Amino acid sequence: MDLRAGGRPGSAGEATRPSVTIQDRVTETEYSERRQRLAGLLAGLRVESGLQALLVTALPNVRYLTGFSGSNALLLVTEDETVLFTDPRYQVQAAGETAVTVTVARGPIEESVAARAAKLRLKRIGFEEARIGYGEWRALGSAFGSKARLIGTRDVVETLRMVKSPAEIELIRNSMRIASTAYESVVLELKAGISELEIAAELEYRMRRGGAEGASFETIVAAADRSAMPHARPSPNRLAANQLLLVDMGALYAGYASDMTRVVHLGKPPRKVKAWYRAVLEAQLAAIDAVRHGVAAGAIDRRARGVLKQHGLEEAFVHSTGHGLGLEIHERPRLGKGDRTRLVEGMAVTVEPGVYFGGLCGIRIEDTVIVRKNGCEVLTPASKELSVI
Amino acid sequence: MDLRAGGRPGSAGEATRPSVTIQDRVTETEYSERRQRLAGLLAGLRVESGLQALLVTALPNVRYLTGFSGSNALLLVTEDETVLFTDPRYQVQAAGETAVTVTVARGPIEESVAARAAKLRLKRIGFEEARIGYGEWRALGSAFGSKARLIGTRDVVETLRMVKSPAEIELIRNSMRIASTAYESVVLELKAGISELEIAAELEYRMRRGGAEGASFETIVAAADRSAMPHARPSPNRLAANQLLLVDMGALYAGYASDMTRVVHLGKPPRKVKAWYRAVLEAQLAAIDAVRHGVAAGAIDRRARGVLKQHGLEEAFVHSTGHGLGLEIHERPRLGKGDRTRLVEGMAVTVEPGVYFGGLCGIRIEDTVIVRKNGCEVLTPASKELSVI
Repeated sequence: MDLRAGGRPGSAGEATRPSVTIQDRVTETEYSERRQRLAGLLAGLRVESGLQALLVTALPNVRYLTGFSGSNALLLVTEDETVLFTDPRYQVQAAGETAVTVTVARGPIEESVAARAAKLRLKRIGFEEARIGYGEWRALGSAFGSKARLIGTRDVVETLRMVKSPAEIELIRNSMRIASTAYESVVLELKAGISELEIAAELEYRMRRGGAEGASFETIVAAADRSAMPHARPSPNRLAANQLLLVDMGALYAGYASDMTRVVHLGKPPRKVKAWYRAVLEAQLAAIDAVRHGVAAGAIDRRARGVLKQHGLEEAFVHSTGHGLGLEIHERPRLGKGDRTRLVEGMAVTVEPGVYFGGLCGIRIEDTVIVRKNGCEVLTPASKELSVI
Repeated sequence: MDLRAGGRPGSAGEATRPSVTIQDRVTETEYSERRQRLAGLLAGLRVESGLQALLVTALPNVRYLTGFSGSNALLLVTEDETVLFTDPRYQVQAAGETAVTVTVARGPIEESVAARAAKLRLKRIGFEEARIGYGEWRALGSAFGSKARLIGTRDVVETLRMVKSPAEIELIRNSMRIASTAYESVVLELKAGISELEIAAELEYRMRRGGAEGASFETIVAAADRSAMPHARPSPNRLAANQLLLVDMGALYAGYASDMTRVVHLGKPPRKVKAWYRAVLEAQLAAIDAVRHGVAAGAIDRRARGVLKQHGLEEAFVHSTGHGLGLEIHERPRLGKGDRTRLVEGMAVTVEPGVYFGGLCGIRIEDTVIVRKNGCEVLTPASKELSVI
């Protein structure tokens, strides 16, 4: 194809580009509000466990709080200041992406952090124990020496991130629209002889042409018995008649992920596949129906599981019903057994029950939804009928 | 475009598909040899520090030793056995990908590992201290309790991985060929008005159509002053006349990465850009010339840095000269200051000096090369003249 500016008129690339003007960034005002909310949490943690600061190591958390999207960063947050530490490769990018103070470390980044902490006389510094490498934890420990103690914290920033702002919801909506549009355009062209890898290439290409930065995770395109692997990678296998095809995909748009799964069948589906599909769809619709402000995350999972149990398919459902998503493809809450998180208006979660039969096939149906006061808003526009092609 | 099997005859997709039959996997014999070499290393570690086993947490190391490519795995290796632990999502995939014993954990995976370790009466178990999360290390610690001690190790499997087998070199060669072919076909079609994101989309699409599983890292397409950011993400900015464009990209082929950087100029380049380009190319060629079996990795970096210093550009070269690559895009050795690793025949490394001028531009030239007895083999076929388009 050619690369004329904007693509060929009427080409797939053009057709999949959203026709409305879409928001593509979070404002500095919103970043500043997020940091203020974090400062509030820190004030609580100071009272509770004497923490004077939080050292943020998870890159999506750094991005959430500052806008900086580079691959090497540490963020030191106190109630009064936020300093971003990075290395010289990101000097220009950091200056362009964030309004917080940036320190470009010429030597080991941990030592720059320790020097700043010493200057602020910080003695008890929280760190993200679920979001740090063992090696980095050790390096920080030796940089701080006996001057400061590192105290494990969990889910501080992740808790803030669970509930999305209106701006974030628009970004996820656009991400989902781009993915769904790409899916629908590719499904129309599917036929026997195309390989899983080629389909994945088309999907990702059309998401990009539609405005995405890329895929939010490795696109799953799994035909026939490969669909029984919930995390199958696309293979060179070519589609054949009378096969089921499962596609699980999402876009990244302005840093935000979307996620959807659809199943199509080449040729008339066998009776069993139709029955399984109906059962999964019933479970998915029931789970969606259960999503609303105030309900426990685990209750959504029970709802889906209950429906599949009625169909004798409980054993075939080997994963959770869904997960939060946003700057990461897997965020809190988990719609799974035992997650007691209460759903809150503005959370973005997937709803994706599935059944898997090794050697035969797998069927999963997944939408991205936003929790609302009295229900939820489904962001995935693609039809959920079993497409027969 | 359409999705007829194999793409349209004569389409870009078709043209970029390698015309030779290419190897796309490592044999089970080779996996078995790798595990034997690791068992040899473990025997040495037993003598040295009493280690009875190694717990492998880095997924590329798991893949290297077993072929398993799922996203959740722990590998327990003793001198006598190798057991792969994963979760139910990967049951089918693990059975298909590896010949080692697989244990599918129904509960927390760390507890399955601890149970096996207890059965084998393991007391001192090495872990990969640079390749484990702090949280996972803690979870393992509590699963083992007082029965076994976790001892930090570094670079055990990574050391094995540095020197590539002939089969691996073929995979990297194919990966590089796919990336380079995609690059060359896209460059021919560049013109003002195309956005960085669109170019990245084309590059990745053509790599996929050429047989890649995807990109080996986020493709960098950076025009004008954005090229001054060594790790720039593609933006919606559109190419304009009299701009420099930097493209840094690689393919993933059968799990193996390639890496290359080229610079093109839209319109006649200014005198300064030409001079900088010549200096970087001189540095790159000198560094390539220095690569051979037996030379220290740091010496290659000194060679590139020395040339740039002669041009008064030492300060503008803000990163290392190169890095190993294979199952990961960044592997040992690092061609940087102070890395004393001796290069060994069969290592795959990048050579990529660059100069960066904030607000103006960046210029980097990068090839993937294989260390040979008396020199090196450059795998990147694309021309290194400054393309003017």
